Amino acid sequence: MNETINLLKQHRSIRKFTNELVSPEQLRDIVEAAQSASTSSNMQAYSIIGITDKELRSKLAELSGHQVYVAEAPVFLVWCADLYRYDQAIKLHKDEETEPAGMTENFIVATVDAALAAQNAAIAAESLGLGIVYIGGIRNDPAEVARLLELPKGVYPVFGMCIGVPDQEPLRRPRLPLEGVYAENRYRPDKVLEAVHTYDHAHRSYMISRSQGKSGITWSEAMEAKASRNRTHMREFLSRQGFHLK
Amino acid sequence: MNETINLLKQHRSIRKFTNELVSPEQLRDIVEAAQSASTSSNMQAYSIIGITDKELRSKLAELSGHQVYVAEAPVFLVWCADLYRYDQAIKLHKDEETEPAGMTENFIVATVDAALAAQNAAIAAESLGLGIVYIGGIRNDPAEVARLLELPKGVYPVFGMCIGVPDQEPLRRPRLPLEGVYAENRYRPDKVLEAVHTYDHAHRSYMISRSQGKSGITWSEAMEAKASRNRTHMREFLSRQGFHLK
Repeated sequence: MNETINLLKQHRSIRKFTNELVSPEQLRDIVEAAQSASTSSNMQAYSIIGITDKELRSKLAELSGHQVYVAEAPVFLVWCADLYRYDQAIKLHKDEETEPAGMTENFIVATVDAALAAQNAAIAAESLGLGIVYIGGIRNDPAEVARLLELPKGVYPVFGMCIGVPDQEPLRRPRLPLEGVYAENRYRPDKVLEAVHTYDHAHRSYMISRSQGKSGITWSEAMEAKASRNRTHMREFLSRQGFHLK
Repeated sequence: MNETINLLKQHRSIRKFTNELVSPEQLRDIVEAAQSASTSSNMQAYSIIGITDKELRSKLAELSGHQVYVAEAPVFLVWCADLYRYDQAIKLHKDEETEPAGMTENFIVATVDAALAAQNAAIAAESLGLGIVYIGGIRNDPAEVARLLELPKGVYPVFGMCIGVPDQEPLRRPRLPLEGVYAENRYRPDKVLEAVHTYDHAHRSYMISRSQGKSGITWSEAMEAKASRNRTHMREFLSRQGFHLK
């Protein structure tokens, strides 16, 4: 196993950071690594907003579910799916209205482009000895986030990301058994419950260790508990942001 | 710049592979690296189908726009957004119908989870000296792909990925200027056209080198040309696959 694969396998989300700053050179390396990721037809349909303003950071932390590390991490990035730039590029050569953000296909492309770039950034940061955590909570009130960051139509915040020097050593969370996510030649619905049962057991042991015996929740129980807390506003928000998902 | 960041920045898509096989140990490392990526609320809402069957491979190559490397690459993976497993996990604890794939929020989560895992796989593969290319063409006829791979409701193919030993040394494609994708504290629509113009120039030079003078297309011209070739069927396909995007 080489150094890079070892790094990938050691990933844990970090939610507590020291005060040590991330240097401008490190941030540049992280963003350039993000830009090097694959992108569908070279659309590069994403944008990154780095939040350096303290007050803005506090508001975003509050909007993300009062996550203190969003306010305090040395670096906080908001990763946006961006079809505004693509639209502007098309308009240089075409008079008609095109509204690329209207199409579901482009919504997928932009969301995937943002994710591929962000994952490269995460790995670059970890290779520098930094820790990261993705912040899905940025979608708790995406309309307010879009207003604060002045996102034009065709741009939406997919997730945030905290980056800094780790000030904790969390356990690595076990994953589904490999056979639970990988199959040959066809999907195997008949194998799903077997993988879930195996994983439920491993997940319970992990939770008992992590909580010093206070919780022994299984994965399927955690998924059931989570299911009622859905962000039911996303469709309406996306439509208002120009993503009509036609 | 460390070894991992150097690897990330050296990425180019590889579309021609030697006959050398990818070993089962390498494939396992690649899939385990994928599994180590961050995942929203630990949903792990993705699945990977490795296509080893020759005939199936040929069909997928044809469906993806007659891309010969899909048929011939040593490894071809189909990355799926997967809410079927999540739904099955919930059903272990709840009698009512939940249909998680109906929600736009879950569609985003599953699409992002597939992309984060895939990008880890891409980097793991590249760290082993292999090359990769993402295949968005898997969405050209996703209904037929879903039929061939027997994908249940709640699962859709996001993209494919070819992996193998590179048999070509393509130029790295330049990216948008860093200022074109990164901004501080708010989106800057006023800076977009400046970045596009700068990039158009760099893109034209790259295309002239790559094509030995046959094409000098700018980025914005390439985006305009691409815009008319949209996958307009995605919304209807997704609905039929259980993703109602409510």
